Amino acid sequence: MKIQGKHYRTIWVKEDDPTTIQTLDQRLLPFHFEIVDLKKPIDYEVAISDMIVRGAPLIGVAGAFGIYSATLSPIKGREREKYILEVAASLKKTRPTAIDLFHSVDKILRSIQEIRNPFNQAEKALELAKSMAEESIKGCKRIGENGLDIIRRVSRQKKNQPVNILTHCNAGWLACIDYGTATAPIYRAHDEGIPVHVWVDETRPRNQGSRLTAYELGEHGVPHTVIADNTGGHLMQHGLVDMVIVGTDRTSRNGDVANKIGTYLKALAAKDNNVPFYVALPSSSIDWSIHNGIKEIPIETRSDHEVKYIQGWNGTKLDDILLMPYTSKALNFGFDVTPGHLVTALITEKGICPASEEGLLELFPDQR
Amino acid sequence: MKIQGKHYRTIWVKEDDPTTIQTLDQRLLPFHFEIVDLKKPIDYEVAISDMIVRGAPLIGVAGAFGIYSATLSPIKGREREKYILEVAASLKKTRPTAIDLFHSVDKILRSIQEIRNPFNQAEKALELAKSMAEESIKGCKRIGENGLDIIRRVSRQKKNQPVNILTHCNAGWLACIDYGTATAPIYRAHDEGIPVHVWVDETRPRNQGSRLTAYELGEHGVPHTVIADNTGGHLMQHGLVDMVIVGTDRTSRNGDVANKIGTYLKALAAKDNNVPFYVALPSSSIDWSIHNGIKEIPIETRSDHEVKYIQGWNGTKLDDILLMPYTSKALNFGFDVTPGHLVTALITEKGICPASEEGLLELFPDQR
Repeated sequence: MKIQGKHYRTIWVKEDDPTTIQTLDQRLLPFHFEIVDLKKPIDYEVAISDMIVRGAPLIGVAGAFGIYSATLSPIKGREREKYILEVAASLKKTRPTAIDLFHSVDKILRSIQEIRNPFNQAEKALELAKSMAEESIKGCKRIGENGLDIIRRVSRQKKNQPVNILTHCNAGWLACIDYGTATAPIYRAHDEGIPVHVWVDETRPRNQGSRLTAYELGEHGVPHTVIADNTGGHLMQHGLVDMVIVGTDRTSRNGDVANKIGTYLKALAAKDNNVPFYVALPSSSIDWSIHNGIKEIPIETRSDHEVKYIQGWNGTKLDDILLMPYTSKALNFGFDVTPGHLVTALITEKGICPASEEGLLELFPDQR
Repeated sequence: MKIQGKHYRTIWVKEDDPTTIQTLDQRLLPFHFEIVDLKKPIDYEVAISDMIVRGAPLIGVAGAFGIYSATLSPIKGREREKYILEVAASLKKTRPTAIDLFHSVDKILRSIQEIRNPFNQAEKALELAKSMAEESIKGCKRIGENGLDIIRRVSRQKKNQPVNILTHCNAGWLACIDYGTATAPIYRAHDEGIPVHVWVDETRPRNQGSRLTAYELGEHGVPHTVIADNTGGHLMQHGLVDMVIVGTDRTSRNGDVANKIGTYLKALAAKDNNVPFYVALPSSSIDWSIHNGIKEIPIETRSDHEVKYIQGWNGTKLDDILLMPYTSKALNFGFDVTPGHLVTALITEKGICPASEEGLLELFPDQR
């Protein structure tokens, strides 16, 4: 995708220095554009836990590059093996909800465990991390193609009036490597000349919607309007939303989706107003071992600071301001789980399916 | 209610100067405590439209005092009558959703229309505005008593474990003259020694929850936790909410309630999780002429500035910071309408009733 007309991915190997990986500091967007160097495992841990990088697919790929950074260590023999496993464990602890991180860290660990030569090990890890990034991009592109049909159909029904799509949080290209998941069909439709308009939930407490989704849609020229998270139900009651498309950090075997806190409320409103509610996801975010998302998916509790304070641009710099009595308590759950029965369909890179075990197994028969 | 241990109402006649009405500048809470003098009709118009005062019951009483301020004018004869009607029209235009404002302005106009002597007219207007304030306080007290039973019952079921009550926006004493509507049963229960804990929705975009409700609960010593508006559904899914109590700015004849944007989403989540959803209201907020709240209650659209920027305490002063790309659009609906079928019961000063025409008419047979 483009920023100021120049093509970027969210994570890439630094030119002329393959030991350094570069990414955007998403905490500063849309106010500052800053590229960050990731060199040591601790850089990756901080980048993921502090949300310099965020979004399930991007976290997954960042975790893979994190293991690569561990393989660059000069430590040898038994100690080396132990060190890499420690890095893997630390990386997995950074964020508990997204499954991609565990998948990609484990995958890369498996691929290098038989390699004894440190140089070869690093080479293999880098190759695999890069191919995971490419796979993610391909997957997002396919999600875009699969979702395009849904938007096109509504556009025809509306006789080419703009299709109003509501999204929550950022499941855009900034959450992935490129294209995005929830945004992939939107970008694709826009690029094909289908008129779309996106309602962007601001997504408190971290405002990934108003800060990131609005930013990337704006840079790409897609018409959009930011709304408070409280607004979606009213819009749906009054026919102002044609469909909802969101992402997911983890999808259970039965089609429940863990996504940014507040997603469940929009799914309820969509159901109550007969608005189709789609979840776009790469199949890497499916956790086949979980049979009941609400009961089993662990939900991250984050610092109360994110609720008590908010960050924005004060005219000269980014500033954190207090929003409530200093002495009051606050609680900050990062995600909620939307039960599959509220989801119209899942849009994956393999195709579209009902949000149920049966639906998923039809697309992914290997998991039977 | 108390602030720093001293008893306050939200609006009162200034000691030694009955031509001046005083109120708190609620825009500055909880960071600054500032008393504002209201003298001329324009002061009231600004106070209501800029939300120095807010909350349906308080707006109603402020509107009444606004007409009183017009009667203090030295203008005489036909011109005087015209002037007062113009003030009434301007006051009614300040906020379109709350019905109390229209009721109280019309009531006070009717009461003074036959009085020719300006002094007597002002005297009557002041008397009536003051008695409206007293009536509101009495009503809130009764709402508290009526709601107390509901909380007590749950407290017994929970064997005296804290009753977790979720509320949205501020329907507290700051929205009224004293006690509040949604908070009245909570304060009453707390004062009787029933353990309660309040989940306070921050209530974007203006954060009346985190700024005002948290403040007044804190000043009164009621345990509470501020949450992002996105959080309530997750809490209900996990059994962490025993009941919801909110206020309303206008209730239609069929029991639909217009309240702060986002209320509808919480009502949907409550229904989906079998959590009782109560709406507390003085009967002055019922609009008997409206038969379908969703279709007929006008919803205020406020400035996009409230979504694009947020105000908070930067450590030295109140500051407005930008939250999103400056070039993106934002839209700001002030209210939404929750259909009566999602409401467990209405708690009024006359008693508790189902949120339906039948239910309301049983409590208010005069409206048949």
